[in-house]
Amino acid sequence: MTFSYSQLFDFTNKILQKIGCSEKEAFLATEVLLAADLRGVDSHGVARLSGYIRLWEKGRINPKPNIRIIHETPSTAVVDGDGGLGLVVAPYAMQVAIEKAKNAGTGWVSVKHSNHYGIAGYHAMMALEHDMIGISLTNASPLVSPTFSKERLLGTNPISVAIPADKQPPFVADMATTTAANGKLEILQRKNLDAPLGWVQDKEGNQTTDSNGVKKGGALLPLGGDREHGSHKGYALGAIVDIFSAVLSGANYGPWVPPFVAFLDPDPNPVGEGIGHFFGAMRVDAFRPAEEFKAHMDNWISRFRNAATTPGNEKVLIPGDPERELEKERKINGIPLLKPVVEDLTSLGEKFGVKFN
Amino acid sequence: MTFSYSQLFDFTNKILQKIGCSEKEAFLATEVLLAADLRGVDSHGVARLSGYIRLWEKGRINPKPNIRIIHETPSTAVVDGDGGLGLVVAPYAMQVAIEKAKNAGTGWVSVKHSNHYGIAGYHAMMALEHDMIGISLTNASPLVSPTFSKERLLGTNPISVAIPADKQPPFVADMATTTAANGKLEILQRKNLDAPLGWVQDKEGNQTTDSNGVKKGGALLPLGGDREHGSHKGYALGAIVDIFSAVLSGANYGPWVPPFVAFLDPDPNPVGEGIGHFFGAMRVDAFRPAEEFKAHMDNWISRFRNAATTPGNEKVLIPGDPERELEKERKINGIPLLKPVVEDLTSLGEKFGVKFN
Repeated sequence: MTFSYSQLFDFTNKILQKIGCSEKEAFLATEVLLAADLRGVDSHGVARLSGYIRLWEKGRINPKPNIRIIHETPSTAVVDGDGGLGLVVAPYAMQVAIEKAKNAGTGWVSVKHSNHYGIAGYHAMMALEHDMIGISLTNASPLVSPTFSKERLLGTNPISVAIPADKQPPFVADMATTTAANGKLEILQRKNLDAPLGWVQDKEGNQTTDSNGVKKGGALLPLGGDREHGSHKGYALGAIVDIFSAVLSGANYGPWVPPFVAFLDPDPNPVGEGIGHFFGAMRVDAFRPAEEFKAHMDNWISRFRNAATTPGNEKVLIPGDPERELEKERKINGIPLLKPVVEDLTSLGEKFGVKFN
Repeated sequence: MTFSYSQLFDFTNKILQKIGCSEKEAFLATEVLLAADLRGVDSHGVARLSGYIRLWEKGRINPKPNIRIIHETPSTAVVDGDGGLGLVVAPYAMQVAIEKAKNAGTGWVSVKHSNHYGIAGYHAMMALEHDMIGISLTNASPLVSPTFSKERLLGTNPISVAIPADKQPPFVADMATTTAANGKLEILQRKNLDAPLGWVQDKEGNQTTDSNGVKKGGALLPLGGDREHGSHKGYALGAIVDIFSAVLSGANYGPWVPPFVAFLDPDPNPVGEGIGHFFGAMRVDAFRPAEEFKAHMDNWISRFRNAATTPGNEKVLIPGDPERELEKERKINGIPLLKPVVEDLTSLGEKFGVKFN
């Protein structure tokens, strides 16, 4: 079943206002959430809306947060999200980074007391229209085991970096620091298919092809999969994201990060407040004239995109290419939703007196 | 054969003075170079000395560089390395980042017209004594193919991040953005062993276990190995390192990065000057009080180090643990060198009238 962007926008926007978000913040949160659906990261889009509402029902999301800077220097700030939707807290913090960069050349903002912030790439891309490089990191509920560990100590902790070009579309990397994001596992689960080795380990810490391995007490594996294939590097990247997002800001880190699902309670002895994010903005012309930089980015992108390919592959992709193409297509043809998601949204709508379909 | 740190130091220091480095810069370059030998990154240490000298003989390394800032804002700078040894240019640029951070909270420096800078970790770790987080990136000669490409377009482009703790030793990640660094392949080549799948592709772009695959015109693979295991993420990381190091500064990027070996000429139509680096320094107390941050880092590190392990593994490592232990051991027991390296250094010494052994 396919739904137009505007239909999903209208529904989400209304639901968020029903839980008490201001008109302005509901609109912003909707835009951030649906950016995931447009860009094909279906696990992070409107399918997550009822999960947010359940967290709000448990008092774990504050619909009227007093988001504010609690510490700053010329190029840094710490933002307290006051338990708000990450969808609203994150753009606020990224905007602080952008304003800092206007004056100091760069801006770096660590955030505490936030919640799930949608796709990392939305926030990084906010920098592009200012001729800035944008960086967006967040920690997340623990589902990932470090190399040699059978405990889940890290989230899928994504890294997004957006870099402007001139005639070429921007370079936009947006990736979990695991071999595969949880959304990819869910696709295999629905199709009853095995996962490749290197994605998942079972609860004893042995690699498994069981795509339900994480649900059975196992864990996602860091990018690399095993030590021989560099999983210690994926682990280090996930750790850096965790530390920048939460140890710098005063949020929860590692195994203390609160679960994203309402049926699991947060740790009764937290080491910080909420989940954490980290944002960066670097003015390109704090390094060299923006036109020069962007002309060289065009050259970089063309050279890579036109590289000779390996057997069976048509072209070399630039990070952001697949998402941008999907966004164009889905804006025109609509966003496909799975049946369980449609049912979930329909009953959510009934609960709040907002017609879904 | 094992050599004491001081013996290798004395030899290297003298050789570098023979090619015209000042006393001060020869000493610094020696310290940076030998940090690799101490920390077990044998491919980046004294084994590389004669390669540097051959580049100097070809006029590709300037022993008396006028290293200088050519552009700056409160939190950024671009440094022109004037063709100097990266071993000298990089610490200069990292020091600029640290000074910027003292005033602006953070400092970010992109470098052009440099050469190979030793191990990334040395420069990142310079930040630690200032209670700062240090970041060090560099591009490198093209040996790596992006996902779906059979051309070599990127270097092994390492990322190092050093984060201070209090009672615990610091967190120090230092990793190539490939599945395996070239040095690991060389070990397999010497032992005539195959490489695991996911490390190398042949010149047609098919995965191979031939540990000599790169020498035969193939390429190293980005972290992840293949698309199914996330190689597009390793490719994106290597690309980000390339762009921050070279497109921001005006150095050569991608396939234009000059080869590290003297027998291969640089591209006659460069897109910039020399190779590029990127450094960052973030004052911890630009975010929260340093004691608070470091106490939480201690907690982070203890929690991860004491995690339950997978079968057959004794403990979970913190990034930097293996290198630190090796450094302690090698400072006492000396640094082992392979026979061809000893012969190479002996004849280098004879050429310059400096006794090696």
